[in-house]
Amino acid sequence: MNRKRIEISAYDKVPFRNLTAYCIGTGRMDLALHQEYQEQLKMVQEACHFSHIRGHGIFSDQMGIYQGEGKYCFTYLDRVMDSYLKNGLRPFLELGFMPEKLASGTQTVFYWKGHVTPPKNMEDWTSLVKATLRHLSSRYGEQEVACWPCEIWNEPNLTVFWENADKDKYLDLYEATALAVKEAVPEMKVGGPAICGGEHSLDWIRDFLSFCERRNLPVDFVTRHAYLGLETTKKGRYTYHDMADPSAMIEELRQTRLIMQEFPSYQGLPLYVTEFNTSYNPFCPIHDTNLNAVICASLLSRLSDVADGYSYWTFGDVFEEQGIPFRPFHGGFGLTANGRIPKPTFWTFAFFAGLEGQAVYRDGNCLVFKGKEGGYEGILWNPDREETQIELIFPLEGECVELVELVDETSGNPLKAWHELGEPADLTEQDLAFLRSAAKPHCGTLPLKAENGFVTVSHVLSSHAVLHFKARRVNRTLEEGYDYNFYR
Amino acid sequence: MNRKRIEISAYDKVPFRNLTAYCIGTGRMDLALHQEYQEQLKMVQEACHFSHIRGHGIFSDQMGIYQGEGKYCFTYLDRVMDSYLKNGLRPFLELGFMPEKLASGTQTVFYWKGHVTPPKNMEDWTSLVKATLRHLSSRYGEQEVACWPCEIWNEPNLTVFWENADKDKYLDLYEATALAVKEAVPEMKVGGPAICGGEHSLDWIRDFLSFCERRNLPVDFVTRHAYLGLETTKKGRYTYHDMADPSAMIEELRQTRLIMQEFPSYQGLPLYVTEFNTSYNPFCPIHDTNLNAVICASLLSRLSDVADGYSYWTFGDVFEEQGIPFRPFHGGFGLTANGRIPKPTFWTFAFFAGLEGQAVYRDGNCLVFKGKEGGYEGILWNPDREETQIELIFPLEGECVELVELVDETSGNPLKAWHELGEPADLTEQDLAFLRSAAKPHCGTLPLKAENGFVTVSHVLSSHAVLHFKARRVNRTLEEGYDYNFYR
Amino acid sequence: MNRKRIEISAYDKVPFRNLTAYCIGTGRMDLALHQEYQEQLKMVQEACHFSHIRGHGIFSDQMGIYQGEGKYCFTYLDRVMDSYLKNGLRPFLELGFMPEKLASGTQTVFYWKGHVTPPKNMEDWTSLVKATLRHLSSRYGEQEVACWPCEIWNEPNLTVFWENADKDKYLDLYEATALAVKEAVPEMKVGGPAICGGEHSLDWIRDFLSFCERRNLPVDFVTRHAYLGLETTKKGRYTYHDMADPSAMIEELRQTRLIMQEFPSYQGLPLYVTEFNTSYNPFCPIHDTNLNAVICASLLSRLSDVADGYSYWTFGDVFEEQGIPFRPFHGGFGLTANGRIPKPTFWTFAFFAGLEGQAVYRDGNCLVFKGKEGGYEGILWNPDREETQIELIFPLEGECVELVELVDETSGNPLKAWHELGEPADLTEQDLAFLRSAAKPHCGTLPLKAENGFVTVSHVLSSHAVLHFKARRVNRTLEEGYDYNFYR
Amino acid sequence: MNRKRIEISAYDKVPFRNLTAYCIGTGRMDLALHQEYQEQLKMVQEACHFSHIRGHGIFSDQMGIYQGEGKYCFTYLDRVMDSYLKNGLRPFLELGFMPEKLASGTQTVFYWKGHVTPPKNMEDWTSLVKATLRHLSSRYGEQEVACWPCEIWNEPNLTVFWENADKDKYLDLYEATALAVKEAVPEMKVGGPAICGGEHSLDWIRDFLSFCERRNLPVDFVTRHAYLGLETTKKGRYTYHDMADPSAMIEELRQTRLIMQEFPSYQGLPLYVTEFNTSYNPFCPIHDTNLNAVICASLLSRLSDVADGYSYWTFGDVFEEQGIPFRPFHGGFGLTANGRIPKPTFWTFAFFAGLEGQAVYRDGNCLVFKGKEGGYEGILWNPDREETQIELIFPLEGECVELVELVDETSGNPLKAWHELGEPADLTEQDLAFLRSAAKPHCGTLPLKAENGFVTVSHVLSSHAVLHFKARRVNRTLEEGYDYNFYR
Repeated sequence: MNRKRIEISAYDKVPFRNLTAYCIGTGRMDLALHQEYQEQLKMVQEACHFSHIRGHGIFSDQMGIYQGEGKYCFTYLDRVMDSYLKNGLRPFLELGFMPEKLASGTQTVFYWKGHVTPPKNMEDWTSLVKATLRHLSSRYGEQEVACWPCEIWNEPNLTVFWENADKDKYLDLYEATALAVKEAVPEMKVGGPAICGGEHSLDWIRDFLSFCERRNLPVDFVTRHAYLGLETTKKGRYTYHDMADPSAMIEELRQTRLIMQEFPSYQGLPLYVTEFNTSYNPFCPIHDTNLNAVICASLLSRLSDVADGYSYWTFGDVFEEQGIPFRPFHGGFGLTANGRIPKPTFWTFAFFAGLEGQAVYRDGNCLVFKGKEGGYEGILWNPDREETQIELIFPLEGECVELVELVDETSGNPLKAWHELGEPADLTEQDLAFLRSAAKPHCGTLPLKAENGFVTVSHVLSSHAVLHFKARRVNRTLEEGYDYNFYR
Repeated sequence: MNRKRIEISAYDKVPFRNLTAYCIGTGRMDLALHQEYQEQLKMVQEACHFSHIRGHGIFSDQMGIYQGEGKYCFTYLDRVMDSYLKNGLRPFLELGFMPEKLASGTQTVFYWKGHVTPPKNMEDWTSLVKATLRHLSSRYGEQEVACWPCEIWNEPNLTVFWENADKDKYLDLYEATALAVKEAVPEMKVGGPAICGGEHSLDWIRDFLSFCERRNLPVDFVTRHAYLGLETTKKGRYTYHDMADPSAMIEELRQTRLIMQEFPSYQGLPLYVTEFNTSYNPFCPIHDTNLNAVICASLLSRLSDVADGYSYWTFGDVFEEQGIPFRPFHGGFGLTANGRIPKPTFWTFAFFAGLEGQAVYRDGNCLVFKGKEGGYEGILWNPDREETQIELIFPLEGECVELVELVDETSGNPLKAWHELGEPADLTEQDLAFLRSAAKPHCGTLPLKAENGFVTVSHVLSSHAVLHFKARRVNRTLEEGYDYNFYR
Repeated sequence: MNRKRIEISAYDKVPFRNLTAYCIGTGRMDLALHQEYQEQLKMVQEACHFSHIRGHGIFSDQMGIYQGEGKYCFTYLDRVMDSYLKNGLRPFLELGFMPEKLASGTQTVFYWKGHVTPPKNMEDWTSLVKATLRHLSSRYGEQEVACWPCEIWNEPNLTVFWENADKDKYLDLYEATALAVKEAVPEMKVGGPAICGGEHSLDWIRDFLSFCERRNLPVDFVTRHAYLGLETTKKGRYTYHDMADPSAMIEELRQTRLIMQEFPSYQGLPLYVTEFNTSYNPFCPIHDTNLNAVICASLLSRLSDVADGYSYWTFGDVFEEQGIPFRPFHGGFGLTANGRIPKPTFWTFAFFAGLEGQAVYRDGNCLVFKGKEGGYEGILWNPDREETQIELIFPLEGECVELVELVDETSGNPLKAWHELGEPADLTEQDLAFLRSAAKPHCGTLPLKAENGFVTVSHVLSSHAVLHFKARRVNRTLEEGYDYNFYR
Repeated sequence: MNRKRIEISAYDKVPFRNLTAYCIGTGRMDLALHQEYQEQLKMVQEACHFSHIRGHGIFSDQMGIYQGEGKYCFTYLDRVMDSYLKNGLRPFLELGFMPEKLASGTQTVFYWKGHVTPPKNMEDWTSLVKATLRHLSSRYGEQEVACWPCEIWNEPNLTVFWENADKDKYLDLYEATALAVKEAVPEMKVGGPAICGGEHSLDWIRDFLSFCERRNLPVDFVTRHAYLGLETTKKGRYTYHDMADPSAMIEELRQTRLIMQEFPSYQGLPLYVTEFNTSYNPFCPIHDTNLNAVICASLLSRLSDVADGYSYWTFGDVFEEQGIPFRPFHGGFGLTANGRIPKPTFWTFAFFAGLEGQAVYRDGNCLVFKGKEGGYEGILWNPDREETQIELIFPLEGECVELVELVDETSGNPLKAWHELGEPADLTEQDLAFLRSAAKPHCGTLPLKAENGFVTVSHVLSSHAVLHFKARRVNRTLEEGYDYNFYR
């Protein structure tokens, strides 16, 4: 068993920005029309209170905006935006893909056939962009819409998302689109290049900024994606990856920042990781596991060192990129499985999103905050297979209590229960209720004894466990005659 | 540690009637107007699906029915009845107490001052009864109302509930009221004497039946109450009892049955225990504990041997008999605390109410059912302070799984968490959310290995634990390439 | 002004079966996943309580059932069926269209590209049908699923819906599919040929029955469609028809019945009109008008003379056959517009669906019922442009009252309000609220004076008005001192 | 018929402050625990968005706060305050009545027996006040609670509300309580003397201010009540008044203001009318009528001339002062009847509360606003029995439309419908649904023709009608081929 003992003093501080809730990912935009999607989103928002939401396909044909030259239909767009706002979310707009009628070619991506060729007529494209943003600005107010960032396209450095991954054509698209955005709603922020990682990805960042600087184009932020999936093994419909260490992602982003600093005119630009996750495959079983929850804890504890916002891909499993999910657990990206069963990673996000106060300690197993009212709160995680004991010593006096929420193999892990139930493809109402219960973290209290002005919080974490605790002073209510121990 | 090993054969049967959900108790009838009451009731009904509900005070002034001779107001009555039916409940009507204007004296009971003296004019009383039942019959249909039992008064053998505990006056009241019921709605069922236990309680049963037989009065069922509280200790506002053994209650009811059998004209009358609980005091801390959950498990496993229906007193803590509850946990009768925090006993009722199939085994620690689809289900409880190990061996083949829900000191026990939080009198929203989570039973699955056609379910129960399990065959879905163990 | 005076006697009866609520139409099956769809459906069900629902595309790729040979995904199917049942609806299953991977050709129909070519392999098709029905039977119970009729394909007599409108290939499809249905769930009912009207439609009926009789195939019911649209005028995206008289539809169905009677082995088969409406075009402005409400009143008053069930096409405007609706009022089929604004025809269905008791009078302007409790109820409509006065004289005594709900140009007509607001493509929340209010029928009471045992109900209906009335006895509550007229 | 013609110019302004939504009245505080109460409140808030709520009895025994010397129970208080805040309301606290155990005498008021004698021990009383306010401040935050005004007692100038209407004892109570408020939460505002009108009411104001000035007491606002009821006629349980003219109330308040101006140290104090209505009797049938709606329109158009806030007594009919309401319409104060049936006066408040922009015209029949976006909006009312025609001429150009909502004898008047249905004491679900429909104002649109830059809005108001209109420019959406008139 690993052991760790950490003493926190009253003056400790570490630099950690809690950006957990900045943004969350979602599948194709029109899936927001689905009732199941809305119910999953509501559940996620109650726990995490994300501020923005980003997904693909605003201009894909399922949204039905482009109806031929100069004709637009905003029925579904309004319905989707209304639903975001009702859930306390603003869109982080990704301007893509191409309406079939505007596409210069026939190449599509995904089961749902998003067109990924450049516009056959750039002016029709920019008219579409401008009409859409003006419509939004008129419906929701210019002030509101100015808080909706606009990212141009998605992963143009991949041939599946942008014909031939043609960089020059992307830069043309960026130029025309960014100018159109500013023309339509001058206060909107615009950025790119929305690339995924890989061999030449850093060149893309450099070339993008260099092009924009040369042509004096608006760039309000830089965006890219980051995943940990390495070697893949395919079995049936599933993809299994070896996983890179979380620090690899941090390093990749640090490199990106270094390149950004080469451009004096873009000093201080925010870097947004508009997608991140462990695996980039929607049928990779890791997403449903408590291991995933642990890796995400590690990532969330460090991403704000190198990025100004990041967006887990995705909040839910109403998702169709490689086809309709065929079983409740199929390795989908979602924080929640279909049927509103939160996965272990759901709780990692809920725990991090709820942290309040001042960060006082961080290492590879934990992040600790001092709360506004004097107590301490933190998240512990165990990335190893071995048990790990963590002891934290806090300067607290008097009667104290610890509130604990635990996710591990047997708590907050509906995947295990579902596996043992026989991996049913469709769930009876009773099994669904059971899985929802099995998906709750174990939750309890521990009385703490202060000694000489210090209390010790100590936990043995089993393999791939994530634990949230709050240690705080107890203001005991005195009630004459009440004897808790009488019937114990 | 106690140990127990039980082998169940495919042909075992024990005589157990699952009457858990027949009826539930509630405080003063007009409290059903409260929103918090309705929310607690909804939560209880979702878990337990009770059929009837019984409480005091239909004719007390808070309901406002009696407005002077011949004038009645059914505004609140209708609102309450509507709310019962909406929750899937029928009233088990307790006809009492006395409207102030009809009372022959000034004696009242409870903080809310229910009048407990006989009517100053019996005809006005029976007119009130008839008008009320006719109104209900006209509003809800005679067929529906015929399923609402009518019990005459509450605990007339106590001087606090019936002036001087005057038996003759009670019998007069019974006669007049029972005849009025039958006159108003001939198909309604009527009964009494609604007594509580104690020294002369069996005499009351005998005298009641003897009186009715002699005067040829309608008696469709016999009712009485049963509690386990013995010696009391008072501390501040609280009452602590020593508790009788559950078998004392069973014996008390068996005695009652024996007396009933003395009356040939009333052969086969049902005996309804219209109130039961551990303590009869609404500020007795036992009600909030997991010990209470264990005692109730024992009672629910045996009550149907001696009674045809029983009603736990009460479903919730919106209750005012000794005053308004001043803290979330104050020893109230409710299955749920105020704030919709289920207490341990809530789960005992939910577990028992959900049992389906055929009872196959019962002893002082468990009740086991064979389900319709071949699996086994059961409830285990540990009334001792010592740990108890229970091993059950079932005839099951192939791959199996056990679904487990556990309530003990650290699971499904919000009282402990509240105690350790400092027993706060009012809860912040966050603490309330935490207590609700801490109130959930721990819930998980265990794979079972069948050997030679048998599987073994084995649990070590800690002190005062209640556990629900389901053991069943697994029909494993085969899905090419899915590897649950890849990321463990 | 037209005038009409009708005396109803206590013994009058007319043969009218109230089949209004038997079935309702809906667009592509997976649109039931949409939240807006579910909200519209809920609103419609609260008013009309339909029993069945029928729409296209169970096997289209949007439902994602067919995933390649022998692989099926029922995720969306279950979600849709769950939602129907939750709304009190059973599916009237239309088995079609073809999954892309099973289609022998590339021809598709609609904006959403439903494949309409025969299966390239009949066995794969029947395997798909059987697997789907067996799945439903296992999830919902065989007894339940036996109440879900199965219709084979949609309008195979049109080349747009079935390649070349090839009758022989349809009959082959019917044979294979009907036998597959009975093999999968023997108690399910099966029928066809689901044709629309037109030149050779009656031949299709005859040839279908003759083929089935010859080959001894199961036929539990005959289905066809019926619309009133004649000559069309196209303007922009809209289609305007001249409308046939409602009696033309009745006659068309009578002819169908006559042909059915030629087949002795199919005596007594039910005839279901699985689609009907005025226009068959989803962008025909008539659907939104009060004229449409009047025509439907006329149809609903007579359809049960010639059919055993009928299904208005469709309940709501979440519908994509010719593209996504671009304005709240665009001539869609729905009883309700998008945004949950009931159209005038919504009320026609609500009025008819609510009729209870015995039909006592019917003509081209009205249908009158005698209620169970002695009053009279009816629906009046005015198909003319001129005002029409209708006087009805009923045998009623004592104090009476009439409850009236009126839909005409200025009541219950949100189209007029929307037109005058400038026909906005997207609605502010305030305008939406206003339109919903403007969509309510005017609703009021009239005191009636009985003279010599008769009361007269008299209404002047403006052009294209529909009116629902109830005339009933008043049991006046006497309340001392209450003077309604004091403050008038 | 009266006729009126009013030309509005682009520069017109009148001094009108829209204080409609400042405060609303409610019955006994603990009635807020009722579900029906909460449902009525939600309905009222959706239409009117009141800011504060004021009612009696925070310290009455039903709230259960005072549990003996130094012991307090805040269970119900918290539940009530939580429910207010959830509905967007802050309490306007009325500190009274007396807990039974603190009362120096036995005199009570109302069916529910509120104690109205001075405290037997002033220190116990102020301890109670301070403990309660400190509890609220700790639960809801001092900043929040500082926005909750505190008024001392209710109508102490009436012997029924304050033993002997003893002015000196009231001033003592004021002194002690006001100082206690400031001690507990220094930022809270405090005021009095909460008197009702009548012979010596102005003396009370003068004596109150003179006393406070002399003793240098905190007075942050002055409060009083105002009703229009004059001579009363009793019939059965009902009270009928002759009604004073609305201008009598305005004059009464103007007199109050004049007295306030006599006190230099209290310059600029706000005057709050903490109760107003037509009749002050909860069984006065006027409250349910459209006449009441008209009188309230007149009052709301003028009250802000003389007061800084006012509170209609009351929002709903969950109310028990003279007993439990026995029929849906019984002359209760509520804007809504029990069963959530809005009364005509509900709409007067909704219309006034919704007025936005700049007041441009006012007379005895109307109040007109110019909206922010250039249109005009207003409320018209007809206090006469005769019809009144009102023509308003506005400077508006181009295509315009008028949105109209009308309440009169046959629209938005459920009382008439209920009367004609026979005045049923309890409502079937169907009749309830009908009454709710009959309670909606008639709602429609009228196209307006601008001539020479002016449009004319013209309405003939029947007796006791209230009408809300909005006249605005139409931005007509052009949609090729759409022909609204094709099917008219």
